[in-house]
Amino acid sequence: MGRAHANALARLPMFFPDAPEVERHTLVGRDRDALAGAADRFGFAHTATDWEAAIDEVDVFYNLGPNHVHAEPSIAALEAGVPVLCEKPLAPTLEEAAAMRDAAAATGATAGTAFNYRFVPAIRYAKGLIEDGELGEIRQVRGRYLQDWLVDPEAPWAWRMDADMAGSGALGDLGAHTIDLANFLVGEEVGGIDRVSGQLTTFVDERPVYVDGDAAGEADAEVAEYRDVTVDDAYSAQVAYDSGATGTFEASRVAEGHKNDHAIAVHGSEGSVKFSLERLNELEVLREGNRGYETVFVTEETDPYVDRWWPPGHVIGWEHTFVHENYEFLSAVAEGKSFEPSFADGYEVQQVLAAIQRADKLGEWVEI
Amino acid sequence: MGRAHANALARLPMFFPDAPEVERHTLVGRDRDALAGAADRFGFAHTATDWEAAIDEVDVFYNLGPNHVHAEPSIAALEAGVPVLCEKPLAPTLEEAAAMRDAAAATGATAGTAFNYRFVPAIRYAKGLIEDGELGEIRQVRGRYLQDWLVDPEAPWAWRMDADMAGSGALGDLGAHTIDLANFLVGEEVGGIDRVSGQLTTFVDERPVYVDGDAAGEADAEVAEYRDVTVDDAYSAQVAYDSGATGTFEASRVAEGHKNDHAIAVHGSEGSVKFSLERLNELEVLREGNRGYETVFVTEETDPYVDRWWPPGHVIGWEHTFVHENYEFLSAVAEGKSFEPSFADGYEVQQVLAAIQRADKLGEWVEI
Amino acid sequence: MGRAHANALARLPMFFPDAPEVERHTLVGRDRDALAGAADRFGFAHTATDWEAAIDEVDVFYNLGPNHVHAEPSIAALEAGVPVLCEKPLAPTLEEAAAMRDAAAATGATAGTAFNYRFVPAIRYAKGLIEDGELGEIRQVRGRYLQDWLVDPEAPWAWRMDADMAGSGALGDLGAHTIDLANFLVGEEVGGIDRVSGQLTTFVDERPVYVDGDAAGEADAEVAEYRDVTVDDAYSAQVAYDSGATGTFEASRVAEGHKNDHAIAVHGSEGSVKFSLERLNELEVLREGNRGYETVFVTEETDPYVDRWWPPGHVIGWEHTFVHENYEFLSAVAEGKSFEPSFADGYEVQQVLAAIQRADKLGEWVEI
Amino acid sequence: MGRAHANALARLPMFFPDAPEVERHTLVGRDRDALAGAADRFGFAHTATDWEAAIDEVDVFYNLGPNHVHAEPSIAALEAGVPVLCEKPLAPTLEEAAAMRDAAAATGATAGTAFNYRFVPAIRYAKGLIEDGELGEIRQVRGRYLQDWLVDPEAPWAWRMDADMAGSGALGDLGAHTIDLANFLVGEEVGGIDRVSGQLTTFVDERPVYVDGDAAGEADAEVAEYRDVTVDDAYSAQVAYDSGATGTFEASRVAEGHKNDHAIAVHGSEGSVKFSLERLNELEVLREGNRGYETVFVTEETDPYVDRWWPPGHVIGWEHTFVHENYEFLSAVAEGKSFEPSFADGYEVQQVLAAIQRADKLGEWVEI
Repeated sequence: MGRAHANALARLPMFFPDAPEVERHTLVGRDRDALAGAADRFGFAHTATDWEAAIDEVDVFYNLGPNHVHAEPSIAALEAGVPVLCEKPLAPTLEEAAAMRDAAAATGATAGTAFNYRFVPAIRYAKGLIEDGELGEIRQVRGRYLQDWLVDPEAPWAWRMDADMAGSGALGDLGAHTIDLANFLVGEEVGGIDRVSGQLTTFVDERPVYVDGDAAGEADAEVAEYRDVTVDDAYSAQVAYDSGATGTFEASRVAEGHKNDHAIAVHGSEGSVKFSLERLNELEVLREGNRGYETVFVTEETDPYVDRWWPPGHVIGWEHTFVHENYEFLSAVAEGKSFEPSFADGYEVQQVLAAIQRADKLGEWVEI
Repeated sequence: MGRAHANALARLPMFFPDAPEVERHTLVGRDRDALAGAADRFGFAHTATDWEAAIDEVDVFYNLGPNHVHAEPSIAALEAGVPVLCEKPLAPTLEEAAAMRDAAAATGATAGTAFNYRFVPAIRYAKGLIEDGELGEIRQVRGRYLQDWLVDPEAPWAWRMDADMAGSGALGDLGAHTIDLANFLVGEEVGGIDRVSGQLTTFVDERPVYVDGDAAGEADAEVAEYRDVTVDDAYSAQVAYDSGATGTFEASRVAEGHKNDHAIAVHGSEGSVKFSLERLNELEVLREGNRGYETVFVTEETDPYVDRWWPPGHVIGWEHTFVHENYEFLSAVAEGKSFEPSFADGYEVQQVLAAIQRADKLGEWVEI
Repeated sequence: MGRAHANALARLPMFFPDAPEVERHTLVGRDRDALAGAADRFGFAHTATDWEAAIDEVDVFYNLGPNHVHAEPSIAALEAGVPVLCEKPLAPTLEEAAAMRDAAAATGATAGTAFNYRFVPAIRYAKGLIEDGELGEIRQVRGRYLQDWLVDPEAPWAWRMDADMAGSGALGDLGAHTIDLANFLVGEEVGGIDRVSGQLTTFVDERPVYVDGDAAGEADAEVAEYRDVTVDDAYSAQVAYDSGATGTFEASRVAEGHKNDHAIAVHGSEGSVKFSLERLNELEVLREGNRGYETVFVTEETDPYVDRWWPPGHVIGWEHTFVHENYEFLSAVAEGKSFEPSFADGYEVQQVLAAIQRADKLGEWVEI
Repeated sequence: MGRAHANALARLPMFFPDAPEVERHTLVGRDRDALAGAADRFGFAHTATDWEAAIDEVDVFYNLGPNHVHAEPSIAALEAGVPVLCEKPLAPTLEEAAAMRDAAAATGATAGTAFNYRFVPAIRYAKGLIEDGELGEIRQVRGRYLQDWLVDPEAPWAWRMDADMAGSGALGDLGAHTIDLANFLVGEEVGGIDRVSGQLTTFVDERPVYVDGDAAGEADAEVAEYRDVTVDDAYSAQVAYDSGATGTFEASRVAEGHKNDHAIAVHGSEGSVKFSLERLNELEVLREGNRGYETVFVTEETDPYVDRWWPPGHVIGWEHTFVHENYEFLSAVAEGKSFEPSFADGYEVQQVLAAIQRADKLGEWVEI
């Protein structure tokens, strides 16, 4: 994530010359040696292992650490009047997310949750169609985020598999994206999520920690210990929106054959759209009066953000979503405006995550 | 349905010469005039409006009527020792389905539920891969059946929208297919469905009955009355299998842009498969050792049923599933064997349908 | 081919009740024993090894034999006033094709060339769009027919690899289809083909004839002899139409990974269409005002021939093209009308085939 | 092009830290005012309108101007011992291309032709498969580059439509890419192109030059004059390689519905690959033993260049090909090595372009 944002900052001057000028001032981390190399590579002038001190030195704070270190530093920054862009999900617990949202509200500092997929041109184009009513009344949303990196039971343990550090697994890591994307696309039309039913599943209960220097897949990789996986490998959820529209969501880290397949579909009474991150330059659109989905290549000058980049038909990639996000966030900061997705938006997603977990535990629908 | 089965029977001699010889004896219906024309066209020697009398005359009984007339005649036939092929879902209520299952068990007559999608070559091919363990341990199933014929609120009312006659809507009509297909593909590996959570939604509460002769969409079509829609336009469900595998299912009759999009995906620990009815000659296969899905054109001589038809690469259509189904059913009858999907299989699906409805009503997971 | 047409005839009464009644009278062939079995299976009352005698007995003559036996019997039939449907390509040589065309013109009997792909609903739908001017001025046509059955050098020799019997290889067998399809779709708009450039290639010069009963691929299959392949495994051609529009065509029997991939694309000044036989229920349409190709599922009641078959979204297969073709041909015969594609249409294709062969031989463009 | 290369240079330090350090020294152009803005935006320290003077100041010269200014400055630079990366096609005429190739050979300075599509990871992956013999003996190549920006006859005239400045149209602009890509992929296996047949077509003979400040598509855009289009809107070619393999190529700027659709397919005796630039992170691979094309998402750490960027499954875009190209070129320069594609490679493409033009003019096959 650090790399994705550092790259985004570095690219702004050439492609978004109207963005505020940014100095990459201080890179915060734990390991002094690693920090020095990273700062050099990513163009930071300083490094620090003490985030509190660092916050005093900067005008904007990016919190890109693991979920369990989102709340405290972000709140401290906001209270110091420093705008914050925090990676998603906002926090491992709803309580921390609430505290972050409240801190943002209380201080008025710009606070953003880094749901970068809102900034895909094809998603913005879809949003425009929905806002313009081209899909009619929204009835159904279907979201799915499939990855395969945990298919192998011998894939190594990581902090993302620990409930205390991560909050949840596929749900918080992947599902948070999907739920936010749905909120972004149809939230104004269907209202918030009213209630949810959920299922969380762990297929592999413990995973190896390899001896330092050994890597999974090596013939003689030595396992130091097995640690418990205390989060979900996969989740699914059904949701009902205030308007009566419904949604189904799911994600998996064990979906053999899918690398980064974040797909969302919206069906309205007069049209539909379909999107997949693996083909992020395309949007499938069923327009009123047409008979089938039209594969719209969202690479025209008139498409959101596209005029900043290359001629029509020249595709962009995953990283560009971060450039757009940074542009919008820093512009908001410079103008003293709020940014969307805000901490409140991040909290709203967190509520749904928490409700899905609770619904799974209780075995019943949970109202939000 | 009558047409699909009559066609299947007519085609057997040329393509399945080893099938039992069949005489299309009596066509049963309500409207004497319509019956005569249909019998002539579909090659039946006789017609009848009284099914009880007809059952006495025939060696095999096909029950292709609306759901609410499945139980009584099917049971009567079985009790008369006449084998029965009954359209799906088995019945509008679980009680009737149970009675049908019991009648089949008691009489020992061959009794089949007409889940024709089990007979798609690509599905049989997928089944073979799963049986052979090529997907490893089965973890997740995803099924989806999308249609669009009720998108328009002015689409006319029909018996399929009435709870008493149909039992349920998208759930029973479309979901039954998906649940059975999942049972067929992975049932042996994952066991039965242990518990379900469901959501049923009706987007359009009442629909017009047009004056005789007027049709929806005509400029001056006159509406005689509006009748209540008492079934779901769409459903979704989450399921947990005995083995710990999970599934998500959904169907919709209001999915703009989808005509007959019945899709199923199975993820295992070593591979995956994906299928869509709209491209029924193809199967997407993620094989162990491969990096992406392989589009297998299931049209080789060595593929199930394909050698009966055309040279490699020459696609078949929807109707061919009925020919295969009739071939298998009639062969079973001739040999005095049981047929799968049986009434017991149909009942198993019905249990899930009922549990989904109950889960929706109670707002909680329901065990089966 | 015999099977495809026999099946088509058998299916007419149920789906095209307005088609003329047809009796499958006499099946002609060489091998008396094989004939008896085939006649029984395909529903013919009589068999004959002498086509001349058979022609006297029938009202319509279908010539489905190898290319080198197209001319003589077809001309004899026409001269006897018997309408003829002849498989494609019309003949192995242009001279024979010309004689056939002349016989048809002289006798006035209905004479059809069996280019069945004209009868795919999606192709008819495309034709309608082009006729209605929805693609604007036609500029470019691209046709491609890829198969893989000769990839293996040990695939057995067959009459289709002999110049005397087949005329040409991929060119006549596959290219004839493509050239006719292009003529059908855009012929009225772009005029005939004015000139061509061509390339014919043979990758495998001789192929095995296996000892009777042995089959290619068997471990101990014994080769009786190797016979020369005197036709092309693949061809390509560039064409210029009278209007200034251009085309590129190619076919291959050694295109690994393609079973029956007959694809055609048409680009106009205001729109485009794309079709592939492997997904014959679909047409990709770029309509004026749209941004990308729309995947039209050509399975609506309002689509050509579709109302004869199944509800919207229920796909048909390869064989249905023969049913449509037989329906149109027999209806034309019954009404004493001409049928398209006629022998003149077949001859026009033959001219192009011959010109491509000549262009290849001369190494220069050849005018037609 | 200037933007694409400036961006590439700017990105090297963060992602290719092993690349030589580069100072963006002098930006050369004609319009002093435009230059100042561009230099500022693209990070150049100096500007110049006199390329001769500029060449004296730099260590490497990038020639990104129109085709007719490729030869003289590139040769001057090489003769001054300054390595050159020149945009494609190498020159508008074969003579100039030969002079450039000879200058490179004589001086020994690193000289590269900027065929950036050689640097797509999926293309490199395909190249690896072919080199490893996984496709067997190469038999057929099919290349196609479709764009739509000249569909509208009122699209404005530009230097790319002038034979003197551009040499040719779709042929040189798009076809050069395809021919080079084919050379790269299969050149070692099939040898050079032995002979070609070609067709060049201009559908719109003259195009408007708008009054300064007016733009095509504006309601009241005023046309200052119409200028002749003296190049092709589309070309097609057939080629024969030394080995007996064959190829078909085509490109169009009037292919409605295609933005930047550069597709290439290679068929061998044991496998095939297919690629399209519009989905540049994917490669379709038919492996020996598999039944259909496998969609390989070429985004794994082990794939060419991918480890420099993002985690598996995170797609890159068009611009990344330039980063890879610049990395390779500058590394070659730093090490005093040659770079591929070299000027000799560029000349080889130019030979084919010239032969296609000549073949079109003569109406016959032309040997190379």
